[in-house]
Amino acid sequence: MIMTNDQDNEKIREVVAAWMRATAEGDAETVLSLIAEDAVFLLPGQPPMRGRETFATALHSTLRQVHIEGEPDIQEIHVAGNYAICWNQISLTVTPLQGGPAQRRAGPTLSVFRKEPDGRWILFRDANMLTAV
Amino acid sequence: MIMTNDQDNEKIREVVAAWMRATAEGDAETVLSLIAEDAVFLLPGQPPMRGRETFATALHSTLRQVHIEGEPDIQEIHVAGNYAICWNQISLTVTPLQGGPAQRRAGPTLSVFRKEPDGRWILFRDANMLTAV
Repeated sequence: MIMTNDQDNEKIREVVAAWMRATAEGDAETVLSLIAEDAVFLLPGQPPMRGRETFATALHSTLRQVHIEGEPDIQEIHVAGNYAICWNQISLTVTPLQGGPAQRRAGPTLSVFRKEPDGRWILFRDANMLTAV
Repeated sequence: MIMTNDQDNEKIREVVAAWMRATAEGDAETVLSLIAEDAVFLLPGQPPMRGRETFATALHSTLRQVHIEGEPDIQEIHVAGNYAICWNQISLTVTPLQGGPAQRRAGPTLSVFRKEPDGRWILFRDANMLTAV
């Protein structure tokens, strides 16, 4: 089956939606299933976070402390071969599980997804520029 | 002529080097020649900067005030069709032209380059996560 760009585009939107849903549900395993083993996460003021396992440690720690509701606003997706580039404007509401005021974060992400041999798209590189609002 | 990925890779490295050199020389026109007209620049805590002309206004203002020496450390380049993804760790020394202490900035960029019909690679999307060090 030949996938058109439109179908790939839709699949990537589903990955983004699944990521947000699983994060809100505290379902780390589903989030991690959407990430390449050799993924890299780039953030301002922090060293690059290399690999799914490193991200998993941070994710588990985060999800023990806060509930995260995210709203993506995908600006564009460019599919090129087995890579896709996605610019997203994300708003997050981060609520401490132990109580206390919710915090809002917002800003852009520039992500690269990679198509696996089985046709799934997974997160390969992520530049996260969200800041407190 | 078929360009291999290696040749594209080298061309993109040359664009990054030319960008840094032109910036250090205050040569805005050369920098702007390396940018797509519909480029988008993403930064933490700022609205997306859309278009070469918008960037040009900011660049001219910056180059009137400071001298910028940049040192790129390209981590990887992935070429996929007419797009290429480049992760770079950049260090900048920013010196006020009117005198005063230099500031250092460092951090990652995740950039997307686009190949033009004439074979040139130009900057299409740029996520800039540099912070003061």
